[in-house]
Amino acid sequence: MRQSRLANDDRLNAFCTDTEAYLDGIVGGPLSGLTFAAKDIFDVSGHVTGGGNPDWKATHAPAKHTAWVVSTLVESGATMVGKTITDEITRGIFGENAHYGTPVNPRAPGRVPGGSSSGSAAAVAGSLVDFALGSDTGGSVRVPASFCGLYGLRPTHGRIPLAGILLQAPSYDTIGWFARNADLFSRIGAVLLQSDIPPVRPRQLVIAEDAFAVADHKVQEVLRPLVERVASVIGNCTASRLAPTHLSDWSAQQQILQGREAWETVKHWIDCVNPRFSFEVAERYRSARAISEADVEAAKASRAAIIARMTAILADRTAVCLPTTPTPAPLLRERLSTRTILRSRISALTCIAGTTGAPQITLPLAEVDGLPVGLSLIGARGSDEMLIAFARELAEILA
Amino acid sequence: MRQSRLANDDRLNAFCTDTEAYLDGIVGGPLSGLTFAAKDIFDVSGHVTGGGNPDWKATHAPAKHTAWVVSTLVESGATMVGKTITDEITRGIFGENAHYGTPVNPRAPGRVPGGSSSGSAAAVAGSLVDFALGSDTGGSVRVPASFCGLYGLRPTHGRIPLAGILLQAPSYDTIGWFARNADLFSRIGAVLLQSDIPPVRPRQLVIAEDAFAVADHKVQEVLRPLVERVASVIGNCTASRLAPTHLSDWSAQQQILQGREAWETVKHWIDCVNPRFSFEVAERYRSARAISEADVEAAKASRAAIIARMTAILADRTAVCLPTTPTPAPLLRERLSTRTILRSRISALTCIAGTTGAPQITLPLAEVDGLPVGLSLIGARGSDEMLIAFARELAEILA
Repeated sequence: MRQSRLANDDRLNAFCTDTEAYLDGIVGGPLSGLTFAAKDIFDVSGHVTGGGNPDWKATHAPAKHTAWVVSTLVESGATMVGKTITDEITRGIFGENAHYGTPVNPRAPGRVPGGSSSGSAAAVAGSLVDFALGSDTGGSVRVPASFCGLYGLRPTHGRIPLAGILLQAPSYDTIGWFARNADLFSRIGAVLLQSDIPPVRPRQLVIAEDAFAVADHKVQEVLRPLVERVASVIGNCTASRLAPTHLSDWSAQQQILQGREAWETVKHWIDCVNPRFSFEVAERYRSARAISEADVEAAKASRAAIIARMTAILADRTAVCLPTTPTPAPLLRERLSTRTILRSRISALTCIAGTTGAPQITLPLAEVDGLPVGLSLIGARGSDEMLIAFARELAEILA
Repeated sequence: MRQSRLANDDRLNAFCTDTEAYLDGIVGGPLSGLTFAAKDIFDVSGHVTGGGNPDWKATHAPAKHTAWVVSTLVESGATMVGKTITDEITRGIFGENAHYGTPVNPRAPGRVPGGSSSGSAAAVAGSLVDFALGSDTGGSVRVPASFCGLYGLRPTHGRIPLAGILLQAPSYDTIGWFARNADLFSRIGAVLLQSDIPPVRPRQLVIAEDAFAVADHKVQEVLRPLVERVASVIGNCTASRLAPTHLSDWSAQQQILQGREAWETVKHWIDCVNPRFSFEVAERYRSARAISEADVEAAKASRAAIIARMTAILADRTAVCLPTTPTPAPLLRERLSTRTILRSRISALTCIAGTTGAPQITLPLAEVDGLPVGLSLIGARGSDEMLIAFARELAEILA
C-alpha cells in the first residue's frame, strides 16, 4: 500500500510499479525510522524478482525467501518501501532500461543515472528514501554513485552474502549500497558488514596515474585538489601506474571472464525463453558465447597477474586513489557505438577492484560543470571498514 | 472502424491491434467484394508501419505513400481490412513474436503458424479475409503457407515492385500472397503480376532428391503419391540431386549474404535506437555483423555457381519439385537450440529459389497426421504465371 503511494509519487521513475514488495522495519533497531529501496534483483518472499526484464519476471515464480541483506536491514529497523529499476539482468552501466524506462538522475538532468543499480541511486539522490541497496559486478554501484553524487561501496568480494539475489556472474557479484552522507553510509555498513566501523585510516595513498589518465581533463582538474587534501590527511603519498601495459588490457580480461560467466549463468534460460533484450544486452551475451577457450585461459593468466600486482600495491593499509568514472554522467540515448567506447573507458577503471576482489568506495566530493563525479579509494581485500571510516573522516574534514 | 471490429473479433491474434489502417476497394474492379490483410511491413499512407517491433514503430513516422501492391489491389477492388503481425523486421521463420504474441495456426493447434508473414497466413487460413499479402526474403511466404495449408508464392525476384515496404535484404526481398484456393490465388496473381495467367504447364518435372532427403520420412511418404500424380500430368519426369555437395552449403552462403545485407539495412537504426529484440533476432544480427569479408567473397562465388546450376536445371520450362518445408509446423515455444537446427533444415529448402531469384509456388495438398505440409514447384525466373496456372490446373485435377 505505502509502496504504491510512493511509486505513484515517483517522478524519478526509480521504482518498479509492478510489485508491491514492502517490508516494515522492526521498532527499536539501529536503523529504525530509516527507509530504503532495493534494486529489483533482491528477493522478497512472495514477490517475483523482475531483474529489469519482463520476460525474466514472466518466467520466474515468487521468491520463497527474502534476501539475506534485505532481512538483515529490516531486522535492524529499516523499512523497505519498494523495489527499484535495474538494467536488464544487471548487464548495463548507463541505467537506461528499454522496457521500464530510465530513472531520472536528479543531479544531472538529461543525463543517464548510471547503472545497473539505476533506480536505487536515483531514489537516494532524489531523497525518496534514506538509502538503497544495489549490486556491483562490473561497476553497477560505483558508476551510478559517481553519476548521481552519492556514497557507494563495492565491498570485498564474498564479504556480504549473495543469498537471495539474481546473480550475474558470481565470481564478480557483490552487494553494495548508496547514501547521501557518510555518517549514514557508515551506520548501514556496520549492519551489512556485521562489524564496527572504528576510526582507521589508510597508511599510504597511491595515486593511480594511469587511471587518472583515462579520465577527461576536466575530471582530472576537479579531482586534483581533492586528491591533495586526501594525501595531506594520510600524510604519505606516491603516484604510480597500476598496469605494466594498459588498463584496457586489464578490463579486456574481465570482459572475457565476467562475460563468459554471465552467459553460463543464464544460457539455459535464454535457450528456453528466447527473451527480449535491448540489442546492446543481447549483443554482449552473444559476444560472450563466442569467446574461445584459448581466450579464457589467457584471460585467467592475466587475471592472476593483476591480482598479484594489486595485492602487492594494496599491502600495509595502502589505499589506491582514482576517478570512479572517467566522465560525469553521459547524455541520455547516446548511440551504441558511442556507448561502447564510453563503456570501455569506464571498465578500465572499474575492473581494477572488480578483478582484484578488493573493496572500492566512491566519494561524492566533486563536480564538473555542476555534474557529480566520484573520487574512489580502493583498499586491500577485507579493508571495507577502513574505507568507510576514512570516508566518514574525510566528510568531516572537508565539510 | 471496421478494422477495429475485426481486430476485436480476432481470436487468432493475426491482426495488429495498434493501427487503424483500412482501405476500401473500388467498386467494379476485378477483385471487388474481396477482403485482404497486409503484413505490417506494407506502408499505408498516414499510418506507421510497425514491422513487428515496438521500437521500430516508435521511431518511425507515418508513411507518406501507400505501398504499390496495396494500392494496386485496392484499385482492383479488394478492401484492405487491416495489418497483420509479422516476425520482427521479418527476421524469423516460425512466426512467434515476443512483443505482439504469436498468431494462431488454425490448421495446427499448439503449433507455430510459420513466419515471418505469420498473421497474414493465419488470417487467410482462419477465413478472416479472402487473401493476404506477405513478403518472402528467406522463406517468409512459403513457410507459413506450408504450415497453415495455403497456396503461397515467392515470385521471381524483382517481378513485383517493393516500393513502400520495410526492406530486410533487398537482394532477396520479394512480395507474395496467400489464398485458400488456387482459382482466387490466380486472380490475385493476374493483378499483382499485371499479366494474364494462361493455361501453361511445365514441360518437364525434376524431383529434387536431395531436397526430399532433408524432409522427415513422414513428409516424404505423404508427398510421394502427390509427386507421382504431378509427374503423370506433366508426363516427363526425372529425379536428380540439385547440389553437387550438400544443400546445407547452399543455405550457408545465403545466410552469409542475406544476413550481411540485412545487417547493413538496419545497422544505423540499431546504433541510434538500441532496440529491443528477441534474443534470437538480436543474435542473428550480431552474427551477421561479425561475418568477414573473406567469407562474403566466398559466399558470392558459391552463389554464382548455384545460380548457374539452377538456371541450367530450370531451362526449357522445367519445374523442380520439392517439399516446401521438411516438417509440418513445429510446436510453439521450442528451445532456441532446437529452433536453430530446424531453421537450418528449412533454409536448406528455401534457399534454392531464394538464391536463384526464381519463383516458387507451394501447394497445400498434403497432410502429416492432420498437419498441413506444402509441396513446392520452382520454375525458371519469369515463370510465375506458369507456376500459378499449373497450380490451378492441378487443383482441378486433384479435386
